[in-house]
This record gives sequence, structure tokens and C-alpha cells, in this order.
Amino acid sequence: MARIGFVGLGKMGGPMVRNLIKAGHSVKVFDLSEEAVNFAVQSGAQSAPSAKDAAGGVEYAITMLPEGSHVREVMLNDGVLAGADPGTLLIDCSTIDVDTARAVCETAKEAGLAMVDAPVSGGVQGAEAGTLTFMCGGEADAFARARPILEAMGKNIVHCGGPGVGQATKICNNMLVGINLLGAAEAMLMGTRLGVPKETLFNVISTSTGASFLFDNMNPMPDVVATAPSSRGFEPGFMAKLMLKDLRLSQLAALASATSTPLGAVATAAYQQHVEAGHGDEDVSSIIKILDPKIN
Amino acid sequence: MARIGFVGLGKMGGPMVRNLIKAGHSVKVFDLSEEAVNFAVQSGAQSAPSAKDAAGGVEYAITMLPEGSHVREVMLNDGVLAGADPGTLLIDCSTIDVDTARAVCETAKEAGLAMVDAPVSGGVQGAEAGTLTFMCGGEADAFARARPILEAMGKNIVHCGGPGVGQATKICNNMLVGINLLGAAEAMLMGTRLGVPKETLFNVISTSTGASFLFDNMNPMPDVVATAPSSRGFEPGFMAKLMLKDLRLSQLAALASATSTPLGAVATAAYQQHVEAGHGDEDVSSIIKILDPKIN
Amino acid sequence: MARIGFVGLGKMGGPMVRNLIKAGHSVKVFDLSEEAVNFAVQSGAQSAPSAKDAAGGVEYAITMLPEGSHVREVMLNDGVLAGADPGTLLIDCSTIDVDTARAVCETAKEAGLAMVDAPVSGGVQGAEAGTLTFMCGGEADAFARARPILEAMGKNIVHCGGPGVGQATKICNNMLVGINLLGAAEAMLMGTRLGVPKETLFNVISTSTGASFLFDNMNPMPDVVATAPSSRGFEPGFMAKLMLKDLRLSQLAALASATSTPLGAVATAAYQQHVEAGHGDEDVSSIIKILDPKIN
Amino acid sequence: MARIGFVGLGKMGGPMVRNLIKAGHSVKVFDLSEEAVNFAVQSGAQSAPSAKDAAGGVEYAITMLPEGSHVREVMLNDGVLAGADPGTLLIDCSTIDVDTARAVCETAKEAGLAMVDAPVSGGVQGAEAGTLTFMCGGEADAFARARPILEAMGKNIVHCGGPGVGQATKICNNMLVGINLLGAAEAMLMGTRLGVPKETLFNVISTSTGASFLFDNMNPMPDVVATAPSSRGFEPGFMAKLMLKDLRLSQLAALASATSTPLGAVATAAYQQHVEAGHGDEDVSSIIKILDPKIN
Repeated sequence: MARIGFVGLGKMGGPMVRNLIKAGHSVKVFDLSEEAVNFAVQSGAQSAPSAKDAAGGVEYAITMLPEGSHVREVMLNDGVLAGADPGTLLIDCSTIDVDTARAVCETAKEAGLAMVDAPVSGGVQGAEAGTLTFMCGGEADAFARARPILEAMGKNIVHCGGPGVGQATKICNNMLVGINLLGAAEAMLMGTRLGVPKETLFNVISTSTGASFLFDNMNPMPDVVATAPSSRGFEPGFMAKLMLKDLRLSQLAALASATSTPLGAVATAAYQQHVEAGHGDEDVSSIIKILDPKIN
Repeated sequence: MARIGFVGLGKMGGPMVRNLIKAGHSVKVFDLSEEAVNFAVQSGAQSAPSAKDAAGGVEYAITMLPEGSHVREVMLNDGVLAGADPGTLLIDCSTIDVDTARAVCETAKEAGLAMVDAPVSGGVQGAEAGTLTFMCGGEADAFARARPILEAMGKNIVHCGGPGVGQATKICNNMLVGINLLGAAEAMLMGTRLGVPKETLFNVISTSTGASFLFDNMNPMPDVVATAPSSRGFEPGFMAKLMLKDLRLSQLAALASATSTPLGAVATAAYQQHVEAGHGDEDVSSIIKILDPKIN
Repeated sequence: MARIGFVGLGKMGGPMVRNLIKAGHSVKVFDLSEEAVNFAVQSGAQSAPSAKDAAGGVEYAITMLPEGSHVREVMLNDGVLAGADPGTLLIDCSTIDVDTARAVCETAKEAGLAMVDAPVSGGVQGAEAGTLTFMCGGEADAFARARPILEAMGKNIVHCGGPGVGQATKICNNMLVGINLLGAAEAMLMGTRLGVPKETLFNVISTSTGASFLFDNMNPMPDVVATAPSSRGFEPGFMAKLMLKDLRLSQLAALASATSTPLGAVATAAYQQHVEAGHGDEDVSSIIKILDPKIN
Repeated sequence: MARIGFVGLGKMGGPMVRNLIKAGHSVKVFDLSEEAVNFAVQSGAQSAPSAKDAAGGVEYAITMLPEGSHVREVMLNDGVLAGADPGTLLIDCSTIDVDTARAVCETAKEAGLAMVDAPVSGGVQGAEAGTLTFMCGGEADAFARARPILEAMGKNIVHCGGPGVGQATKICNNMLVGINLLGAAEAMLMGTRLGVPKETLFNVISTSTGASFLFDNMNPMPDVVATAPSSRGFEPGFMAKLMLKDLRLSQLAALASATSTPLGAVATAAYQQHVEAGHGDEDVSSIIKILDPKIN
């Protein structure tokens, strides 16, 4: 079993650490929140006094942080790169912009360290159940070394390509989540206003050419899919503010790759408005309220 | 077996008539194109000298026409309503705007005639194979009478609700087709430009939360789905100009129902540009060219 | 001086009638609101028992109604066409969709009556001051006859072209109002969030290439233009719900003319959301709240 | 008169240097293009062997570069900061993203050097005529020192606020340019398709509430404004690819400031498509071709 350093014990990082420990790994953790560290220690982790220290004397140094600026900070300034032994594999599970992912990977390489970007999908539920999907970018041998570790936390580990390509893959998928969900809201709302019973509308479209994973499983119209957040008062699920974060990353990626994404752009503007209107902590499907504020 | 009048023998109407005859019905047809009439007669139909005449002495009068203005014209001015016997059921299989569908149904009702709006999905292929889906609007008993006739031409006959609700259901579905397809193009193009191999991008998204019927089956990036039109030079399939027609109907419906459809609106603008640029006869998935003219 | 029938005594029609009377014309009025009729009578108008009667025995029959359906109803069913003497000139000052304007004009022509579409800009203030702009469509001689009458109510009387062209002109202008105003809101909000003092931002842009009538005079950022509605709690001015009406007409016109209007479409979706969120009676410039709900 | 170092002798930088020399300043220049350097030398400039050298022994070090990455490179890696004497004022006239502008200014400050961001508007014509507008960000005393130098190159020198605020101001203005111009194209195209003569449409709107600097002076419909690029085969003027650059910066700014800019986003997507379709070197007003490819 491996020695692992882990920085970032938030809603995702916490349960991921527990699954690593459960799989028999030895995990040294660091987080700015003492409470989060204590909780991890109770699960069997060791506490490290700094990010740099967490990254020292381990085979794998994993980071799970909110934004690209944090990753840059923790890797470069807070000393993960400086603290890591030669041969330590860096695995960044954060969802961040492609450019930062590549820049940090490049700097790590110059320092003689291999790195894998491995953003996840599956949410808190997936993190707890150990069923996350990891979309990985990096050299083939680095990925091969990362895979067994990631398998302790997820069940679908995909090598997408070189550095940053894991991030790119995730952000493309999640841009579609934002688009398909807002589109689903538009169609469901327009149809019911035109007199189609919502169950009929759902049944026809979900078995026809307009179907999508989101439409079928997370339909934003309340009381159409019983298990969907929209039928439970839009309790998340996947919070609208996290959708906004991903859509913003998608637009950074669109600018970086000089790609025209008209629907992605409009969906991003819509979620920005939705979050500013105070709905950030609701499920992502609450975007239907931007079209009809009477829905709740 | 029933006596049926049928007006409109285009790419859809022609094979629909043949399937009615194959099922043993007696069909009297009218179309402005003598050639289309002759072709139907060779299949066993009788030729009627006018729309009004086609609608006389039959139990069902079916119309399959390009636009709402044609339906209004044929029903009101060309005499289908005037020619129909009391008790004849009117079935309009055209895809037209909801307001016209309701207005014509109302006028028919005032003339003592029941009417069902029954737009189809499935395309020319479905019309020929008799596997169309019919999305029907109208009174329950009218639908009950229409069903056995429609079953000769399709395999999925759905009663969506009252008058016009068949049209409303179809247009909601097809608005999502336009949105999900343009979204798929944006994601595939951005991802590959960021360095994700297109097969990987397809494999990850089609098994993840960004999946949709269109993404999975009609992916607009060439050579990702072998059977998709994009892998056969964008040969249709479903022509971009027909997608534009449906998106335009969706925006009429959005205005009529006072529903904000930001993505539907942007998709409509995009297809309008695409068709004006000369791509109307290509498959609907050729919309990816609006984002990258080098794809072909 | 002329004998005039006038149907529609709302916020615009009322003061328009008073200006006609002030100019020495003899005016016979009809409206469903008894109160509005009484008010006009106190100003010197005569009361007619019906729209048909108002249109009889006069040289000009003027209508000022909320929507195309009302114009159609009043002209065709309520008898303006039937009541008018041969030679009476019909002048419709309502803002309605181009197709209805043309259809009613055509029907009038078949009945031997000339008609001018003459939508206005200038608002209630302009109606009261007699300083409206009239954008007129119709035959040249009909326009020539209408002009002296319109001059009693406005100061800028423009002949734009044939039937419906007055409506088309107005709707193009007002689509730009919606676009330029939402754009102004985006720029002002983004700039101030980036640290530009709002007065500086206003001063630079209003004297540079980003300037527009709306930006310069009705800037949506409060306390930048002292006389703008945004500096008086968004008290109208021009109500957001009327902007939405015009934007909806612009999108009908875009569909009717098969024109791609991506910005017009997005602006329409935005105002639809804004009005549904309860801001319809505020000034049009309150659209900035859709971007930042903390502004008020 | 002042000693000035100048890095970046492109279409803008070249004439700016000539105006500095004309005003009596002593200018030392550097550019990667030997030809551009020779041309400047013929005008009276001295040639410096490197950017670092150009910045040494002068009171002002001015940069005029295409992108933020170049500014970062030239300032930090190529040695402008290293080469500059204490007390040298850095003036960056490039149009770059706000974040980079602020980061470079911060680094300069840490190195003991004051810096002003001073992006321009007015184009090549304004650079040659010495009539540029400078939108400046930086400390008040730095701006006060920069002003007399900038006055040799422009006639409108505005202090917008602290570091980066010059960039922010310009990008807000230019986002409106993109929006107002695309909006103008939509309105002109829709109106003429509806039958309004283009001259009439122009005359009415340019004197009404839909007016804007762009609509009135650079109307995208050919042969409406005789002096507009659209009436000269869309010869620039301001190239579409430079508009795209500015719109992309606006969207970076929107993301950085977490501002929803739906129209800015859609305009950016449109210009991206337009440039990819091969129109980047045409005037910005050629965007009308995206709506109607038959216009030229």
C-alpha cells in the first residue's frame, strides 16, 4: 500500500481521504481548516503542519482545491513542488482551467516531477461511495501509476490524453450539462404553457430525439421525475454555484481555444444571473426559475 | 377498412398513402403535382380533382402540408371543410404553428367537424417503413377514432392532449434537438481544439452527464459515430432547412406562450445563418460548420 | 378643419384626441371605458355609441389600440370598415405586427378604403406635448392626406414607404433600443465592478465610439445621468412591459422576414424574464437589475 | 524635452514614435522587425539592441504590443523592468486584459517603478494624426507625469482611475462597439427585408432613440453612409479581427469580474465565427455578412 499526501479536505476531499484509508493507504493530510483535519485524523489520517510537509516523504501528493489560483498557490508558493521527493507523483483532482493545469504541470516537469490532472464527476455522493469518475490528463506512464490510487476513490478512471486534457474533457461535458439543462427548462416550460400536460411532455421527449441524460433524470420541472432535485424543492444535488464555476471555466477554455460557443456563453450568462439572484446553493436544475420565478 | 381522403403527396405524404393502401384502406388523393398523384394512383389510390372532392364521401380526411398557411388554405378556402360529410374526421399531419392548428380546429368544430392535429417524427425513412411517431392533439373520442388509421402509418401513436397540443409537443421536442445538437457541436469542437482526442471525448461524454440522444447518435463531429450523417459528408438525415422550420415554429410558440427561451432563440438565429449560407439541404448536424468552416 | 373619428382613448389616445381638438378639429370618440370617453367629452369630443358609429360620417378614422388582435377586431368585426364612408381615410396609430398591419390594409383596400399605418414614438409625454414622431406606411397620396392631421399630434411626420412599412421602421428602431440599453447595462456594470468610477465610465464612453442615444440619455446605472429614470428609482419613462411588447413584435418581424437577429433574440428573452420577475411597470432601463439584483 | 524608450513599432507604434519625435522628444526604439526599426530610425529615432536597452537611461519607457503575453514577456523576461532606471515611468499603450495589466503594474511597483496603463482608441488614422484617445489607469502622480508625453500622440487624455482601470474602460467601450454594430446590422437587414428603403430606415433611426455612434457613422449596410467602410467594400477602418480581440478581452473581463454580459457574449461568439469564416481583415462592420452572406 502507498504513502499519500493529501491537501484540501473539503466536501469532496474529506470522503476521498476516507476511501484511500479504507483501501489501506497511509495518508498524511493538510487543510487550512483545523476541523477538517481533525475529522480526517479521526478516520486514520496523519496531520501534516503544512502543504509542503504533506507532500514530503510520500509516493503520491494529491490536491483537491476550489480554484486554479489555489492550485497554483499550493503547488508553487506553499511548497508542494518544493517538498515533494524525486519520484513523487502529483495528482490534482481539482476542477480548474486548462491553462493553469498545463502551466503547473509544466513547472512540475521542470522540477523533475510528473503530474496528472484528474478532475472528477459524481459529486459528494460519488466521493462518499467511492464511485467517482476521474478524467485524467498526463503522460501515459504517470497515468498508469495514478490509476490504482484513483481506483480507491472511483470506479471509472479514464485516460483522456496529455497534460490538461482531463480538465478539458470535464469542462466540455459540464458545459453540455449547463446547456442541456437550461434547454430542458425552456422546453418543459413552453410546452406546459401551451397546454401539454407535463407528464405527457416528459414521456414523449424522454423517449424521442430531444432526450438527454439531464432531461430524463434531472428534469427541472417539479414533480415529473420523482427522484429529481426539482421534485424535492431543488435541494442539491449539484449546486447552481458549482455549475456556474464550471461554465465559467468552459468560457475560459472557449477563449483559450478560440472556439465560438454561443449556447455555452448564453448558459453561462444565465447561471451568473441566477446565482446573483440568490439561488447559488440550490440544485443546478433550479435554473428553470430564471424563466419562471413562480416555480419553486 | 376505411375510406380516406388524403391531401399532400410530398416526400412524407407519398409513402404514408402507400402504407394506408397496404393496410387495406381505400384512399382518394389530391396534390398540385400531377406527377405525385400519378405515382400514388399507381400504388392503388384514386385521384380526386380537388382538395374539396378528396374530402367528400370519406370517413377520414388527412392533410400533410408544408406550412400553416397551406393548411389554412386547403381547409378553409380550397374546401376540405366544405367538402367533408358530417362525421368525417379531419386529421392534419402537417407540422405547423400551434395558433393556426387551434384556429383551424375551432373553425372545423363550428362546422360540425372533429379534428386531430397529428404531426409526426421519424422522417422520410419512418414514413416509408410505417414507423412514424404521431403526437396527437384533439378530443379523446376524436383521437380514439384516429388511432387505428394512424397505426397503419406509424408505430407510436400518442395522445398528448386537446387541440394543438400535438403540435406543441412536437415543437418542444424539436427545439431541444436544435439546442442539444448545437451544444454538442460546441463541446466537440472546443474539446478537440484543447487536445482531447475526439473518440475519447465522445466516449466520456456519451456515458456521462452531458449525454443526449443527439450527442450519442448524431454527433456532429465527423468520424466519431460511423452511422451518423456527419461521417457521410453530412448527407441527410434531417435537413438543416427543416430544422430551421421547426425552430422558427418554436419561436412562434415561445412568443405565443410568452416564454423566455434564450437557448432556443440563439439556436434559431444560428440555423437561420447556416441556411442562408447555403447549407439548408445538408444534414442538421452540419451546424458545426458555423463554428468551424473547415469541417466538411 | 376636419371631422375625425377616434377609437382607443388610453394613455396615448386620450392626449392625442385633446391635441386634435385643440387644433380645431371635430372629434367623435369611442372606447370601452366610459370614464375615458367622459374625459374626452369634457375636452370637447363627442361620444359615439360604437366603433362603427365613430367611423361614420367623418373624413378620418383614427385607431390607437394595444395589439394587432384589437386592430383586427375593431376594423373588421366591430365595424370601422363597415361604418366608414367612401373616401374616409383610416389611420392606425397602434404599434402592431407588420403582417396584421398589411392584412388589415389589404382588406380595407378591397373595401375601397385607403389606410395608413402610423405608429408613434415619444411616449405619453410626447402625446401630451403634441411632439410625437409618426412613422407612416401607406400609399403616397394617403400619406399626404394624413399628414396635416398627424401634425396636430406630432412634430416629426415621416413617410417610410408602403403599407406596413411604418410598423417595420418603428420595430427596427425599438429593437435597437432594447439591444443598446441591455448592452449599456452590461458595460456599465462590468466597468464599475472592475473599478472604473461610474462617472468616468460614462464620460469616456458617451464621448467615444460606444456612445448611443440610450447610453447617453437613459443610462441604466443610477446616478450617472441625473435626468434618467435610473436616477429616479426607475420610475417610467417607457415601461419595461412596453419594451417587451415591442421586442416581441421585433421577433415576429424577424421570423416573418426570415432574418437572423441574435442580439434581438437574446434581448427579448431577457426582457421576458425581467417582466415575469415583476419589473414590467418600471422603466425599461431597469433591465440592469437582471444583471445585478442589488441595484435599485 | 524627454528621453523616451519605445518597444513595439507596429501599425500603431510606428506613427506614435514619429509624433513623439515631431514633438521634440528623443526616442530610442526596439522591435523584432528590423524593417520597422529602420523606418523609425529614418524618422529620427535611435535603435536599441534590446527591449532592456531601450528602457535604460530614459525618463519614459513606452510599450505598444499586441497581447498581454507580450507585455508580460517584454516587461518581465526581456528586461524592461530590469533595464529601467529608478524613476523611469512605464507607460503601456497596448490593449490587454485587466488582470495582466494589474499584475505587471504590481510587479513594477515591487521593483520600485511606477506604471500607467494607457490603451488607445482612434486606430491607425488617429495614431498618424496624433489624435488618439488615451484611457489611463494608474496613480494620480504617475498619470500627471505621463500626460505631457501622451499629449504628443493624442488629443484626449483621460485619467480613468487606478492600475488596470484604463484597460477596463477601453474594454467596456469596445464591447459596446461590438454589440451596437451587430445590433445595427440586425436592424438594418430586418428593416430592408420588410420593405423599408434603407435610406429611410437610416434617417429615421439615426435621429431617433435607436441611434448610436456606430449606427450613425459606421452603418454596416452598404451605401447608406457614404464615408462608412461598408460603402467602400468593407475596407478597414477597424479590422474585424481586432474587434474580436477586444471582445475576447471583454469576456475575460466579464469572467474576472463575475458579470453577466449576455449580449457581449453573443457578439463575441458571432465575431469568432466571422473571423474563422475568413473575414478577419475586413472592416468590423462586415459582421453584417454573418446575417446575410450575399452582402458584399
